[in-house]
Amino acid sequence: MPKQNPVYGRVALIGLGLIASSMFWAIKRAGLAGEVTGYARSEATRATAREIGLCDRVCDSAAEAAEGADLVVLCVPVGAMSAVAAEIAPVLKSGATVSDVGSVKAAVIAAIAPHIPAGVHFIPAHPLAGTEHSGPRSGFAELFDNRWSLIVPTAGSDAAAVAKLRGFWEGLGANVEEMDAEHHDLVLAVTSHTPHLIAYTMVGVADDLRRVTDSEVIKYSAAGFRDFTRIAASDPTMWRDVFLNNKEATLEILGRFTEELFALQRAIRTGDGDMLHDYFTRTRAIRRGIIEAGQDTDAPDFGRSKAGS
Amino acid sequence: MPKQNPVYGRVALIGLGLIASSMFWAIKRAGLAGEVTGYARSEATRATAREIGLCDRVCDSAAEAAEGADLVVLCVPVGAMSAVAAEIAPVLKSGATVSDVGSVKAAVIAAIAPHIPAGVHFIPAHPLAGTEHSGPRSGFAELFDNRWSLIVPTAGSDAAAVAKLRGFWEGLGANVEEMDAEHHDLVLAVTSHTPHLIAYTMVGVADDLRRVTDSEVIKYSAAGFRDFTRIAASDPTMWRDVFLNNKEATLEILGRFTEELFALQRAIRTGDGDMLHDYFTRTRAIRRGIIEAGQDTDAPDFGRSKAGS
Repeated sequence: MPKQNPVYGRVALIGLGLIASSMFWAIKRAGLAGEVTGYARSEATRATAREIGLCDRVCDSAAEAAEGADLVVLCVPVGAMSAVAAEIAPVLKSGATVSDVGSVKAAVIAAIAPHIPAGVHFIPAHPLAGTEHSGPRSGFAELFDNRWSLIVPTAGSDAAAVAKLRGFWEGLGANVEEMDAEHHDLVLAVTSHTPHLIAYTMVGVADDLRRVTDSEVIKYSAAGFRDFTRIAASDPTMWRDVFLNNKEATLEILGRFTEELFALQRAIRTGDGDMLHDYFTRTRAIRRGIIEAGQDTDAPDFGRSKAGS
Repeated sequence: MPKQNPVYGRVALIGLGLIASSMFWAIKRAGLAGEVTGYARSEATRATAREIGLCDRVCDSAAEAAEGADLVVLCVPVGAMSAVAAEIAPVLKSGATVSDVGSVKAAVIAAIAPHIPAGVHFIPAHPLAGTEHSGPRSGFAELFDNRWSLIVPTAGSDAAAVAKLRGFWEGLGANVEEMDAEHHDLVLAVTSHTPHLIAYTMVGVADDLRRVTDSEVIKYSAAGFRDFTRIAASDPTMWRDVFLNNKEATLEILGRFTEELFALQRAIRTGDGDMLHDYFTRTRAIRRGIIEAGQDTDAPDFGRSKAGS
C-alpha cells in the first residue's frame, strides 16, 4: 500500500533508461507526483514505455513532456544535456525545478545552466545507483533504496526548492547529501569512473589475447574477471560521455593508479612478498568499512548471488 | 538426503581455509569419502574446526592427517606447498593420490613433485571458485556447484587415478576439465590474477587520496568501486603467493593491460569519443557470453544482491 504524499504536481522524465524508469516506479510506489510525463528520443523506446505503462503519459517531444511540469529531470547521457535543456527552456513553467541525474556535475552545469530561464530553479543531482543493464525495461522501484543521491546546488539555488528536491529523492528511497560540483567529480572519479575504465580495459585485454581463446575466458571467468565484465557491460554512450566530461579528475586518478600499479608490478618482478602482503592487508580495511556502512552485504556471493547459482 | 557414493576411503585435507572447509561440507553432502581427516598449522584454526565439526578427525600434524589416506589434498597457500609435501612424504600410502588446490600450477608442481615417493600419484588441481572470505568458518557445501575445477595431470599421471580424482570433483559439484600447467597459468593470469592485482591497486589509490576522505570513499562506493573492494578483500597471504609464483604470466598480462589503458587514457585526453564508444561496445559481448555460459546470472545486482538490499 503506497503512501500518497505528492511532492510535485507533475514530474517530467526526459530520457527513459535505467534511471528514469526506476524513478517512475519509485515515484508510483511512494505516490510522489500527481502525474508523470515522459519522453525518449527513440521511437522504439517510447513504444516500449507505452507498452509497459512506464509514465502516465508518454509524449512525442521533450518540450511537450516538460511543459507545465513542476519538476523536469533530465535523464539523458551527459553529452545530450545541453541540446535537451535548450529544447525545453521556452516551455518551462515559472517556479519549476529542472534537475538531472548525470554522473558528472561541473560539465553538466556548464551545459545546462545557460539555458535555464529566470524564475526557474536549476538544481543538479546524481543518484549513486545503477546496474549493468540499460533501457526502459531495466528499471525497478528499489534501485535507490538506501543508496546515496547527491544534490549539487549551484550558486544562488533557492533553499526551499533544494529542500523539496531532497524530499523527493528521500521519497524515492535514497539518502541525500549536498556537495559542490568539483568535489563531486573528484569523488566519483575515484569511486566510479576510474574503476569503470579499468574494468573496460581488463575485459578488452582478455578479448584481444589470442592464445587464450574467447571461450576459455568466458568459461573460466572465476571471481575477479566476472565482476569486471559486469562493470564493463554498462551503457557505452553513458560512459563515453562520462569520461569526455570528467576528463581532468579521471586523468588525475588514472595517473595515481598507474603509479601504484607500477610499484606493485615492481614488487612482483623483484619478488618483494612483504610489500605485496602489506598492501593486500591494507585494502581489506576499506572493504570492512563499506560493509559496516551498509553499502554492501557480507554474504559470500563474490559477484554472484548464492541463491541464483 | 545425501547419496552415499564414496570415491575414496579416507581423504586428508591439509590446511583448513575456505576451500578445504567447503570441500569437507561438499564431501559430506555427497558421501564421497569414508572418513575425512584435517590439519591446520594454526592451533586456533584446529580448535575452531573441532568446535564446528569440520572434518571427522582434526589431527595435530600434517603427517598424522595424511597417514593412510587414499587422497591427500594440499589446501595451503602456494608458498607453503613444498614444506607440507616434504613433511607428509614419508607417511604416504602406496597407491595414494596427492593433489592440491593452488591457484598457480607450474610453480606448485615444481614445489611438490620432487617430494612425491614412487608408487604415489601426484595430480594437481585447481577449483575456480572462491569468495572474499577466508578461514575455517567461511566454507559452504555449494561453493563448487556448477563451477569449473581444472585438473592438471603431470607427465606420466596414471589415467585411472586421474579419472578417480575427476569423479571426486564432479561429486563435489564441479565441472571438470584437464589442462596443461603452462596454459593454466596464462588463462588464470587473464581471468583472475591480473584482475585481482588491479582491484587491489584501485582500492589502494582510493585509500591514499587525501582530498577524498576514507569516509567518503566508503559512503559513496557506488557500483564499480564496491566490486573492486570485494575482490581486494581476499586473503593477502594467498594472493602474495599467487603473484610471486605466477610472475611471468602476470607480468605479461599487466604489460598488455597498461598498453590498453594508455590507449584509452589518450582517447580521453584527446576527446576521441568514437574510440571510447567502440571499445565499450566491444566489451559488452564478453559479458553476454559469460551469462550464456552460466557462470553468472543476468540479475541486476551489480555486486549486491537485490534481496539483501
